[in-house]
Amino acid sequence: MPIYNAPAKDMQFILHDMLKATETGIPGYDELERDFTGAILDEAGKLATDVLAPLNASGDVEGCRLENGVVYTPKGFKEAFAAVKEGGWNGLDLPEEFGGQNLPYVMGCAVGEVFCSANMALNMYQGLTHGAINALVTHGTDEQKATYLPKMVSMEWTGTMNLTEPHCGTDLGMIRTKADPQGDGSYLITGQKIFISAGDHDMAENIIHLVLAKAPGGGEGTKGISLFVVPKFLIKDDGTPGERNGVSVGSIEEKMGIHGNSTCVLNYDGARGWLVGEEHKGMRAMFVMMNEARLGVGLQGYAQAEAAYQNAVAYAKDRLQGRAVTGAENKDGPADPLIVHPDIRRSLMDQKSFIEGARAFTFWGAHLIDRAHRMGDRDADGLISLLTPVIKGFQTDMGFDMAVQAQQVYGGHGYIEEWGMSQFVRDARIAMIYEGANGVQALDLVGRKLAVDGGKPAMAFFEMVKTFIKENDGREALKADFLEPLKAASKDLQTAMMYFMQNGMKNPNAALAGSNDFMHLFGHVCLGLMWARMGLAAQEALDAGTGDAAFYETKLATGRYYMARHLPATGMHLARIQSGAETVMALPAEAF
Amino acid sequence: MPIYNAPAKDMQFILHDMLKATETGIPGYDELERDFTGAILDEAGKLATDVLAPLNASGDVEGCRLENGVVYTPKGFKEAFAAVKEGGWNGLDLPEEFGGQNLPYVMGCAVGEVFCSANMALNMYQGLTHGAINALVTHGTDEQKATYLPKMVSMEWTGTMNLTEPHCGTDLGMIRTKADPQGDGSYLITGQKIFISAGDHDMAENIIHLVLAKAPGGGEGTKGISLFVVPKFLIKDDGTPGERNGVSVGSIEEKMGIHGNSTCVLNYDGARGWLVGEEHKGMRAMFVMMNEARLGVGLQGYAQAEAAYQNAVAYAKDRLQGRAVTGAENKDGPADPLIVHPDIRRSLMDQKSFIEGARAFTFWGAHLIDRAHRMGDRDADGLISLLTPVIKGFQTDMGFDMAVQAQQVYGGHGYIEEWGMSQFVRDARIAMIYEGANGVQALDLVGRKLAVDGGKPAMAFFEMVKTFIKENDGREALKADFLEPLKAASKDLQTAMMYFMQNGMKNPNAALAGSNDFMHLFGHVCLGLMWARMGLAAQEALDAGTGDAAFYETKLATGRYYMARHLPATGMHLARIQSGAETVMALPAEAF
Repeated sequence: MPIYNAPAKDMQFILHDMLKATETGIPGYDELERDFTGAILDEAGKLATDVLAPLNASGDVEGCRLENGVVYTPKGFKEAFAAVKEGGWNGLDLPEEFGGQNLPYVMGCAVGEVFCSANMALNMYQGLTHGAINALVTHGTDEQKATYLPKMVSMEWTGTMNLTEPHCGTDLGMIRTKADPQGDGSYLITGQKIFISAGDHDMAENIIHLVLAKAPGGGEGTKGISLFVVPKFLIKDDGTPGERNGVSVGSIEEKMGIHGNSTCVLNYDGARGWLVGEEHKGMRAMFVMMNEARLGVGLQGYAQAEAAYQNAVAYAKDRLQGRAVTGAENKDGPADPLIVHPDIRRSLMDQKSFIEGARAFTFWGAHLIDRAHRMGDRDADGLISLLTPVIKGFQTDMGFDMAVQAQQVYGGHGYIEEWGMSQFVRDARIAMIYEGANGVQALDLVGRKLAVDGGKPAMAFFEMVKTFIKENDGREALKADFLEPLKAASKDLQTAMMYFMQNGMKNPNAALAGSNDFMHLFGHVCLGLMWARMGLAAQEALDAGTGDAAFYETKLATGRYYMARHLPATGMHLARIQSGAETVMALPAEAF
Repeated sequence: MPIYNAPAKDMQFILHDMLKATETGIPGYDELERDFTGAILDEAGKLATDVLAPLNASGDVEGCRLENGVVYTPKGFKEAFAAVKEGGWNGLDLPEEFGGQNLPYVMGCAVGEVFCSANMALNMYQGLTHGAINALVTHGTDEQKATYLPKMVSMEWTGTMNLTEPHCGTDLGMIRTKADPQGDGSYLITGQKIFISAGDHDMAENIIHLVLAKAPGGGEGTKGISLFVVPKFLIKDDGTPGERNGVSVGSIEEKMGIHGNSTCVLNYDGARGWLVGEEHKGMRAMFVMMNEARLGVGLQGYAQAEAAYQNAVAYAKDRLQGRAVTGAENKDGPADPLIVHPDIRRSLMDQKSFIEGARAFTFWGAHLIDRAHRMGDRDADGLISLLTPVIKGFQTDMGFDMAVQAQQVYGGHGYIEEWGMSQFVRDARIAMIYEGANGVQALDLVGRKLAVDGGKPAMAFFEMVKTFIKENDGREALKADFLEPLKAASKDLQTAMMYFMQNGMKNPNAALAGSNDFMHLFGHVCLGLMWARMGLAAQEALDAGTGDAAFYETKLATGRYYMARHLPATGMHLARIQSGAETVMALPAEAF
């Protein structure tokens, strides 16, 4: 069975050595002392290793089943879900007034990564609930908040997001689900929603669906969309679940992965719902939550890679096959462990250096969200809006690739379900698709975010890179291995942006044909920046002679690998971008 | 249900416009007139579309099952297998003396691609048989040939290859299966073999296992290995199957994909076997067949991408979502088809340009094998030995990536098994692993093949590229779009090789740390050469005013895409290679 241990030491390094959490001045960050965050991560890690991870493979094999309209989750999920609930984990970063602990979002991310690595399918029930809570916190009425939030924060009730319909996912302007106003403040919701993660299950006494639907008079397209809260069981006056609402499970989708999560077709047949936020402004309500939701999916990308990587390392150390080209290392054994072979090393270093970089990027992004929410820092808000599609798109593409690499370390055994590596790959695959497919992320980045506020956030990013390089210019230990590659990569990114500016106005396709490459180019520069910052933090710790020197040396070596081996991708992406739209759009549709 | 139509027109273009088959002077190629090959491909295509492809998804869902020691294949497989058998397809490129038609191997590849795209799991039963036949043709005694080959060529009996054991796959020197000589020319084989594709099934009256085992006195490691033929049913004097031999199915592996193929654990308990080739020289016997077997797997890589691509195109034309950024194209509809969006185009062009390039590379490789076998051309033999790990490793890595991209075009529907895209991805994944995992291919390429014969084959390859560029230097239509990018990419490859030569002697890790990148760099240069040759062929046809001008224009546009968008990867791979082994090997094993 696959192993999993929370990478608490690495998380502590990012929180304290790189982000220097307690020194940021962000309200709530003063609490994040090293011992305190360490204790949280240790507890989360124990739960993950002892309770969540052991159910990952069995949940994949068993999947969810629908019997007489009732969804049953795999064996053990109910008890594991209860353990997460009883630990109060869901409220960690949620408002105290609804029963949460109000810790910074960055801590929610750290714990979220641990739970997701251990059991993504199970963790999604909680993740969706979190998303629905955020929608209600931001847009719900006081009554709605009082009715739903305490129960959802405690995980007695869970939540879902209902956007997609059979004929539309990305293009939500086409949705057909109707909301018929009843004159008493309620609406009757009718229509079919598909791909509803955690859509129904047997682990909570109620499920609170947030549903996009069209109320009369809203006009065409996305302008006509409103957001509704539709509980599975209507709430009685005493606040407990009562009569069943008119929403039912049509079927559970058979998917490539995340089998432990019930992805449902939900049929709304005049289900009673209530408006969340303003009528006809449902898309706006959705967009507010998008940064967090998308960052959460970007996190899933590397979290699955992390789980796969840990197992690949264990296998590479254990499996004896062949001899080191430089001479036998395990002389008394029949062969050397796989890890002696340069190409296995190359693969493990690819994985390790990506994962640690992505973790830093995600935590830094979460810290920007905290900065924006807790301090009203508009620059941080602008920056995280710009970076969100990069975190989501780049990290899920790369996370999947790295999970595939981890699977490859196992050779034939990687293809056999029993070893668990296939599941990491199959589960990781969904993160590239949901919460806006990665092509949509690239479009959002190039078609919208780059130009927001006259390009101010993008300029701020470049300024940040420039300043970092300048400030550390005198550090010879970082110069050749970190600062120069970062500078070159950042220049590639600026050149690409310039190309879009010069060509995109005349021909929007010239920019959009390069959108996917730009997202990846941007992602590499971000991870390059993270590695430079981590390199600095590790070097400072070594200079100060504090902590575990071997850990910091490993950090520096891993960073050097990223800069030398991952970062050269920026040149390729730039060349692809600069080749423009001509070859991309040359063929008429019928030539395909 | 997924669609599939044989790309006969593209195959004809490669055979006749690019390879100019009938003009090659290779014995047997004179038969390959355009009409003749067209008729073969049409017939193969019909069988694929009507019989094989419709069973692909159902075979995936149903899988194989083991009941009371008997393996049952999915519903319909038996009948489809019989249809392939009755069509005489297996003998297409096999010797006439055993019932084959003795057509060139390149035609076997073309038909093999079609069958593999339509139903990889089913096609593997035939593919393994083909491999076993080749082993017996090359190394079997006259008696063995007479006993087994006619039945195997006709597919009354099928074959398997038994190499892997639980503790070793790549490192075959460690195998434990024993062969105990009985003094009558036979041996008793005892041991366990795993991952045996097509290991048992209900579609043929006998199964002929080729088994690697150790006979006494052979010494340590691979030197002690011999190859044995071990029929499932012992052959009676009249040539028909008789008593059951001592080999049984331990279990069927639960795999990520190719569920329709029975991947078996086979237990040999004193099964009677006979030596194939010389005692203790089994590895040599295996290696002889390796070029063909590995080329066949490289073919599977792009064949799955082809099937996935065809469906992605159909979906991109059909699915209405969003509007073209340059203005609505489907004004009367609620939205434009996906194919108007630049990033969808980018993805489809990535797929199309890779697949067509890989097809050309594979057919060209097959033609080199024909040249080597039919003309005794040692240069061709040297070249295909060099290129085989590239065809296998590069094409299966890329084929998988392209299948993932095709799946991505479907958005959420791509993740739902019902749509069939997940299967293409899951099936394609195995080709990166079996027949030598891709890391082993890279090692074979850099650690062995580059240096063979003093590097003569590698030099011959560069000479070929150079000559092609020189010969066509005057063609302005090709110069900027094809010849210059090919020249630059080829230079990257030469620089990489130079780096290995200068550093690999001192430090073998310096070369091996770059082996995977080198394999990909080499693959891109090969596909670049193929596209340049295809570009020339298309341009010549356009200049001559013959044939379908739109087809040739499309070919040129697709080639320009490959050169502009895929080929820039060579610079990235070179940079990774030139960064050497230092960052790759920096960490002690315990730091992972």
